[in-house]
Amino acid sequence: MCRNRLFLALLLACCGTGPLAAATPQQAALDAARAFRERHGAEVLAQLADLAAIPNVDGDRENIRRNADWLVGQLAARKVQSSLWTLGDSSPVVWGRLDVPGATRTLGLYVHYDGQPVDPAAWKSTAPFSPRLYDRALEAGGKPIPMPAPGATLDPEWRLYGRSTGDDKAPIPALLAALDALAAAGLSPTSNLRFLFEGEEEAGSTHLGDYFRAHRPELDEVDLWLILDGPVHQSRKPQLVFGVRGVVGLEITVYGATRPLHSGHYGNWAPNPAFELARLLATMKDAEDQVVIEGFYDSTVPPGPAERAALARLPVYDEELRRELGLATTEAAGALLAERLLLPSLNVRGLSAAQTGQRAANVIPAVAVASLDLRLVKGNDPEKMLDTVEAHVRRQGFHVVRTDPDAATRAAHGRIAKIVRQPGYPAARTAMDLPILAPVVAAATAAAGAPPLLVPSLGGSLPLYLFTELLAKPTVIVPIANHDDNQHAADENLRVANLLAGIDLFAALLAMP
Amino acid sequence: MCRNRLFLALLLACCGTGPLAAATPQQAALDAARAFRERHGAEVLAQLADLAAIPNVDGDRENIRRNADWLVGQLAARKVQSSLWTLGDSSPVVWGRLDVPGATRTLGLYVHYDGQPVDPAAWKSTAPFSPRLYDRALEAGGKPIPMPAPGATLDPEWRLYGRSTGDDKAPIPALLAALDALAAAGLSPTSNLRFLFEGEEEAGSTHLGDYFRAHRPELDEVDLWLILDGPVHQSRKPQLVFGVRGVVGLEITVYGATRPLHSGHYGNWAPNPAFELARLLATMKDAEDQVVIEGFYDSTVPPGPAERAALARLPVYDEELRRELGLATTEAAGALLAERLLLPSLNVRGLSAAQTGQRAANVIPAVAVASLDLRLVKGNDPEKMLDTVEAHVRRQGFHVVRTDPDAATRAAHGRIAKIVRQPGYPAARTAMDLPILAPVVAAATAAAGAPPLLVPSLGGSLPLYLFTELLAKPTVIVPIANHDDNQHAADENLRVANLLAGIDLFAALLAMP
Repeated sequence: MCRNRLFLALLLACCGTGPLAAATPQQAALDAARAFRERHGAEVLAQLADLAAIPNVDGDRENIRRNADWLVGQLAARKVQSSLWTLGDSSPVVWGRLDVPGATRTLGLYVHYDGQPVDPAAWKSTAPFSPRLYDRALEAGGKPIPMPAPGATLDPEWRLYGRSTGDDKAPIPALLAALDALAAAGLSPTSNLRFLFEGEEEAGSTHLGDYFRAHRPELDEVDLWLILDGPVHQSRKPQLVFGVRGVVGLEITVYGATRPLHSGHYGNWAPNPAFELARLLATMKDAEDQVVIEGFYDSTVPPGPAERAALARLPVYDEELRRELGLATTEAAGALLAERLLLPSLNVRGLSAAQTGQRAANVIPAVAVASLDLRLVKGNDPEKMLDTVEAHVRRQGFHVVRTDPDAATRAAHGRIAKIVRQPGYPAARTAMDLPILAPVVAAATAAAGAPPLLVPSLGGSLPLYLFTELLAKPTVIVPIANHDDNQHAADENLRVANLLAGIDLFAALLAMP
Repeated sequence: MCRNRLFLALLLACCGTGPLAAATPQQAALDAARAFRERHGAEVLAQLADLAAIPNVDGDRENIRRNADWLVGQLAARKVQSSLWTLGDSSPVVWGRLDVPGATRTLGLYVHYDGQPVDPAAWKSTAPFSPRLYDRALEAGGKPIPMPAPGATLDPEWRLYGRSTGDDKAPIPALLAALDALAAAGLSPTSNLRFLFEGEEEAGSTHLGDYFRAHRPELDEVDLWLILDGPVHQSRKPQLVFGVRGVVGLEITVYGATRPLHSGHYGNWAPNPAFELARLLATMKDAEDQVVIEGFYDSTVPPGPAERAALARLPVYDEELRRELGLATTEAAGALLAERLLLPSLNVRGLSAAQTGQRAANVIPAVAVASLDLRLVKGNDPEKMLDTVEAHVRRQGFHVVRTDPDAATRAAHGRIAKIVRQPGYPAARTAMDLPILAPVVAAATAAAGAPPLLVPSLGGSLPLYLFTELLAKPTVIVPIANHDDNQHAADENLRVANLLAGIDLFAALLAMP
């Protein structure tokens, strides 16, 4: 009846407050998203469960490929021109393009489809790749429930457990639902869209730079990258994040005898590598939890006035978080979390030597292993940070090797540490006052009904420096997962409220003026 | 032709050097053992493989019972009056008695048939309970070979790999072979024999005292206990051992947050229990490897003049051992092994926190665990020694709990350590100059052709205090296993030469004057 959509929108903005009362294309998109998720929420949740059921640990080539094929199929079904980028043995990148007549801006939408390695024995909720719905969080006494039937109403406190339900498959069905919601309402995105699904993020994005160099012309079309990853703020408020910490890892192996020894026959005589490792680690931090490795903090660029101001506006949630995590105290005499994230960190992510628990035997272990990760901030070069740790290990009297020591090396050195460096990348940051970022903040405000928190840098790490440095484009992180999603650990989960809010947010972003 | 065996023996001792030239019953028994093992060595080895194929970890009730039934069957086949002692849910004791007309002495023969827990993933040679023969030690490039056919000649450097091939199933087929060898030669043991096979030694012999109290009259018939367990000296020379260290264990769990945390989002703020544990362990020993826990050495009774003299006669094998084990240095600035075994030891037998290696994820672990064992010497009470460790943990600022902390405990204490104490027992020692011990030393000398090493105390632990204190009987350890048998660890093995020497030794002991 009425062919002029803009006219209709303006008309309705003046006269109505009902479901059709959309004042702007963005408001229309938001209304469409809400209507869509109320009718099809159960199907969106089922789609996340289907996707999370495909194992996605880097190196599992067959299943990684199944994930990529699933994504290509979903994009094609929505008339997005999609392709699979491959490079040697690396996990493929799924690339999609959707051009919108008249659009003057090209939005890049990044998600990663790979997940952290899993330790199935540690999962209490379900097997890592058998997603299972609970009526609330396990810690709150959640019980498993059946998946809802199509059309059913979702309880926002339900949680879907399974690897990558939070990090980082959650945005995928939410984004597809936002596209579907717009299409169902006869709306189009207001920007050209480029989809980039990476398959090696949890392994350190080792090939993303190569992919970028190989597909530079297509990538250069993008004006602004939205990184759909990470959790919302611990207060459950939405946030936009303008930077990330870098990350790098290493593993230290300390050697005792060539074989495990009977602790009775050799105890007090043969060196114990578990003790040696404990002593070594203990030298790395002081009683106030400061890293005392020489030069560790030297390259750190302290936050500037703009970042300090943004930080000062963030809610302080430390006490609530402390209680929720069962901690009586935190590091550095209770310094604020937001402050602590501005420093590089040294984290022992794992220890092992022989066995503990029921399988413990009375042996002097042959080796003891500590796996460490370092989170990096602006100014920290990954390799140079590892250099400071390695120099510290040498200063403690260890001979450092790259492979297991041979007999001659063992004969020559009393203390031997193998240090294996792992790939990493530096921190990255986008200036918070760029004009192109204003509609993003407005879209998030419209979707949530309140302004999002604006965070200069996330504590976590993403290969954002490839976007900000290599592609030289502004980049903002748009997270939807709950902060208590156990990402990187056992019993990873997504809270249903966060999935639903993600649909609204993505619809608003697709329709931003 | 000649009915007087003694006369014949004396005659042959004067006139002959051939295979029948046995000067004494003991020499006849030794000749019989050598002839038997040359003809039946392959069958003895096969019998050890059969026995080692029965899983024997305490708590695996069905298989433990299969071991006990196997032993009862073997004793019965040799006309030893055998019975199964049971006590509640404990692993049964197999008891056997063989009275010899005219014997004036009753020998007790102790072996344990249970083994240490296994970590199948750590075994390179074979599955722990699928014994496999190698042409030499794995470390020397050994390759698997088929079991020899009956009657085949054995290579003394072959090794049979499998849990308990060394500790402590090896003496069982050797003892049975010694009985068979005597019987085949028409000889009788010179002592009444009592066989005692325990099934809970590796679990700390928690019920052996109760068994002793329940069967006291039978046990009181024994004049001298021979403990068939442990390895020979590191120089591969036979040894007799007159004491053992005690042992006790504990496990320390240090707590972080209630769940593993993303190291990016929480690193530098949430306490890391792996670091806390490393710091705690590092406070327990000084740079000279002395335990600096208050009171740790206070109860230790130093060795007396007789023990010092015996120790001074022992060969010093430290340098060879150091080289064999790939160690450039040893603890306490190279103090002698024999000296170090006279002190109580504090050993970290296992460490764990989250994951290392390929499964490491970037998390702050929720807990970190150290499993420790203490070896005890004369004077050390197990519980009091654990008290010193626990008091030390408290002095480092930890609130000590017995079970996982609840929310109120977590809220009240910044540092929490769960300490779980494990059962243990004290050290024991028999005076080396008792007359009843002289024929034992003579038998070992006859079997090996040279005097054995006489060791005041083994570094390892056995429940010997139950024999020396509860039963109040002299007790000597008669080991046959190779020192490099990887006991208590992966790839446990028995060297064939040690099995064969064991047959000779046991035959000489069964026939001692």
